[in-house]
Amino acid sequence: MSLPAANIPWLTALSGKFVVVEGPDGSGKSTQAARLVSMLREAGLEVVEVREPGGTPLGERLRAVLLDPETGEIDVRTEMLLYMASRAELVASRIRPALERGACVLADRFVSSTLAYQGAAGGLDQTAIRDAARAACGEVTPDLVAIFDVDESTAAGRMGLLRDRMEARGSAYHAAVRRGYHEQVESEPETHVLIDAARSLDHVFADFLGVLGSRFGSPGVQSNSSPRNVEAK
Amino acid sequence: MSLPAANIPWLTALSGKFVVVEGPDGSGKSTQAARLVSMLREAGLEVVEVREPGGTPLGERLRAVLLDPETGEIDVRTEMLLYMASRAELVASRIRPALERGACVLADRFVSSTLAYQGAAGGLDQTAIRDAARAACGEVTPDLVAIFDVDESTAAGRMGLLRDRMEARGSAYHAAVRRGYHEQVESEPETHVLIDAARSLDHVFADFLGVLGSRFGSPGVQSNSSPRNVEAK
Repeated sequence: MSLPAANIPWLTALSGKFVVVEGPDGSGKSTQAARLVSMLREAGLEVVEVREPGGTPLGERLRAVLLDPETGEIDVRTEMLLYMASRAELVASRIRPALERGACVLADRFVSSTLAYQGAAGGLDQTAIRDAARAACGEVTPDLVAIFDVDESTAAGRMGLLRDRMEARGSAYHAAVRRGYHEQVESEPETHVLIDAARSLDHVFADFLGVLGSRFGSPGVQSNSSPRNVEAK
Repeated sequence: MSLPAANIPWLTALSGKFVVVEGPDGSGKSTQAARLVSMLREAGLEVVEVREPGGTPLGERLRAVLLDPETGEIDVRTEMLLYMASRAELVASRIRPALERGACVLADRFVSSTLAYQGAAGGLDQTAIRDAARAACGEVTPDLVAIFDVDESTAAGRMGLLRDRMEARGSAYHAAVRRGYHEQVESEPETHVLIDAARSLDHVFADFLGVLGSRFGSPGVQSNSSPRNVEAK
């Protein structure tokens, strides 16, 4: 069903770019990311996929600490800093090296999730989250954050068996998460883009490609050859 | 050997204050802190002592993760964020509640240690540390940071059996830590004070009291009675 990569000359412009997919569980972001990854690899790009939380030995250890009932109740700032520590490790050990060698990095959730879940929905001060994110990631920030936007009932319908877990949080929580995502698009429109994810997978994927194209495509300059090769001709 | 608390009317002015002792291992900071704690308690103050790292169940768990060889090599930013997460938990669960009920909090190491060890000596960007500290501690910052300043050989001499551990780091490392502390006194002179800790314990304690007195003592206003009681007379 996917379009042949040869038809999309700007795909190679994603070399060395950092793309994040965001949205609630059930938004379809992971499915859309997987389709993009296939297409990028077809076009000859190295793609590094990272998924939060976890992704490194340290991240897995921290996850275990967070989930262990013996750890007891912890403060919301502490939890946020643990996610950021896990993220710092992911940036240092996987994301930064990949970008430096020209791979495209595709992350399933990043700082935007912390701003939406712990910030907008959890009530944690957004400034604290942004301070911690700067400390964790330094200059490594996404070139594009694609936010797959759906209402709660659509997302819950897609979750099937996991539906109970989502519904346990309540509608106000999900509405706050969604508002948190929308606020990011308003405050950082140059990198954060909302994609209506309530439609069919193919419609959503076409929109996702459209967003990527308008962000990274520059017709006449970007092509399957890198700009450097074009100049050398 | 300690002066009777009755002779130092301003001691009660430390109610609700946050005092940090800092300096390298072997600087005598913990001994000096213990003497101050005794004197404050003699004066009727509630004193909460905290010691980093650790001090909370979560802090102990993180310490175990950091020390476990299975965790492997971790990035310097990740390590710093784990210390900050542990600190955030300490602030939320012990320091903030203590200050709010009017106790004096005495911390053996705090953010200054991160700036000196991971920052000045470890090469980590000071801005990242300050960003993470703001995220971890919010508005809870020390009223006084007393830095017990000694040269490496004096500190090593006092460390006895632990000397090997200190010397393993090398002179350049210890010099960088010390310089890190000095820089903090230069940039934050209103809260950070250097105390020459190379002299006898009693000399150093007298200096420590002098620093506390000039910071918190306000003769004629502060006394064993709180200002509110004075007004009520």
